[in-house]
Amino acid sequence: MDVYEALYTTRAMRRVKPDPIPPDSQGRILDAAIRAPSGGNAQPWRFVLVDSPEVKALLGPLYRDSMQTLWSTFYKERIDRAMADPDTPSHRSMLRVQRSAQWLADHFEEVPLFMFCFVRSGGGEGSIFPAAWSAQLAARAEGIGSALTSVLGIFHPAEVRDILGVPDDSWSNPCTVSFGYPLGRWGTAPRLPVDKVAGRNRWEGGLGFTVPEPLWP
Amino acid sequence: MDVYEALYTTRAMRRVKPDPIPPDSQGRILDAAIRAPSGGNAQPWRFVLVDSPEVKALLGPLYRDSMQTLWSTFYKERIDRAMADPDTPSHRSMLRVQRSAQWLADHFEEVPLFMFCFVRSGGGEGSIFPAAWSAQLAARAEGIGSALTSVLGIFHPAEVRDILGVPDDSWSNPCTVSFGYPLGRWGTAPRLPVDKVAGRNRWEGGLGFTVPEPLWP
Repeated sequence: MDVYEALYTTRAMRRVKPDPIPPDSQGRILDAAIRAPSGGNAQPWRFVLVDSPEVKALLGPLYRDSMQTLWSTFYKERIDRAMADPDTPSHRSMLRVQRSAQWLADHFEEVPLFMFCFVRSGGGEGSIFPAAWSAQLAARAEGIGSALTSVLGIFHPAEVRDILGVPDDSWSNPCTVSFGYPLGRWGTAPRLPVDKVAGRNRWEGGLGFTVPEPLWP
Repeated sequence: MDVYEALYTTRAMRRVKPDPIPPDSQGRILDAAIRAPSGGNAQPWRFVLVDSPEVKALLGPLYRDSMQTLWSTFYKERIDRAMADPDTPSHRSMLRVQRSAQWLADHFEEVPLFMFCFVRSGGGEGSIFPAAWSAQLAARAEGIGSALTSVLGIFHPAEVRDILGVPDDSWSNPCTVSFGYPLGRWGTAPRLPVDKVAGRNRWEGGLGFTVPEPLWP
């Protein structure tokens, strides 16, 4: 798969089939993840794949609780605003994300594979998110959907450490990736265009050149 | 370019030629960056491309000061250890990274293009590093080398805001990407193998399957 196709069409795919992910695909996804950059090439990371029904049964309730907390705290205002006026495009997008994220919470135990990403304290989040995103791009090339979530490491870090046998709290879990064969269609997710979010030599004032048409529609 | 080739061979390329980056490539790099995921698809980002000699002349001394601070604080112990025993592979790697990073500091003003990445407070670093990494992967497809650095936003955040006209300190600068046509060769950077950094359902105990050979040597 062309790298641009992967970069454009790797949208969050939370609704997935329960079919297992073949070990060869899992291996290629992991091997792509560890090629990502990290500060000083220190590779301060560790990855725990989770596919056991027993382990998912322990994590699922924590994930549902985390999402419930998220909706009723950080996202409460945005969701209330969106529900009051659901036809505004940005509100529609917010409600779509919420429904999709809630689907993942409701079906956590049916999702075939998770990758819990850990970073050593002092390693920095910038030394783990590129690896997680590389794993998602590699999964796209395998025809496997994925989504990134941070809530378990925020709301239940100690329980996650306990369940997965993480040796101590010098490791944090900034993100976890879910994987599965998609129920939905691949496509380019909506984004604010480049000329709305970029400047040249100054914050304001525009780019000074025309951005080519997106490479994927 | 195949997505796996990009994922494997996009190593930090700090030593680059002064040749300018064509606007079409800059546009494709930016347009790939904004396809990256962000928490709740909030896209809490802004990018400032820097290619003006005047602006680089203001930032270069700050970058050199940042690197000097980095070597004499966070990295001091690692560098001292590496210099005391420079033939150990991990020490060799550390010293190679240091030389390469120092090259970038010494030649900052000759590097044709930088992308300063900003994230709104509350947006989270996880909502900017995937975009920066996507920009690096897109650059790879364009034949353009890149490297990720965090030091300016750590050591000189207020000066960077002032120079680039960032409206206020609700925006932080977790990373900056340098771009240029490489002086060195493309290749797969050294990494600890997957079976040393990954487990299955538990931190320890191995993966339970054989990881396929790396797709790029």
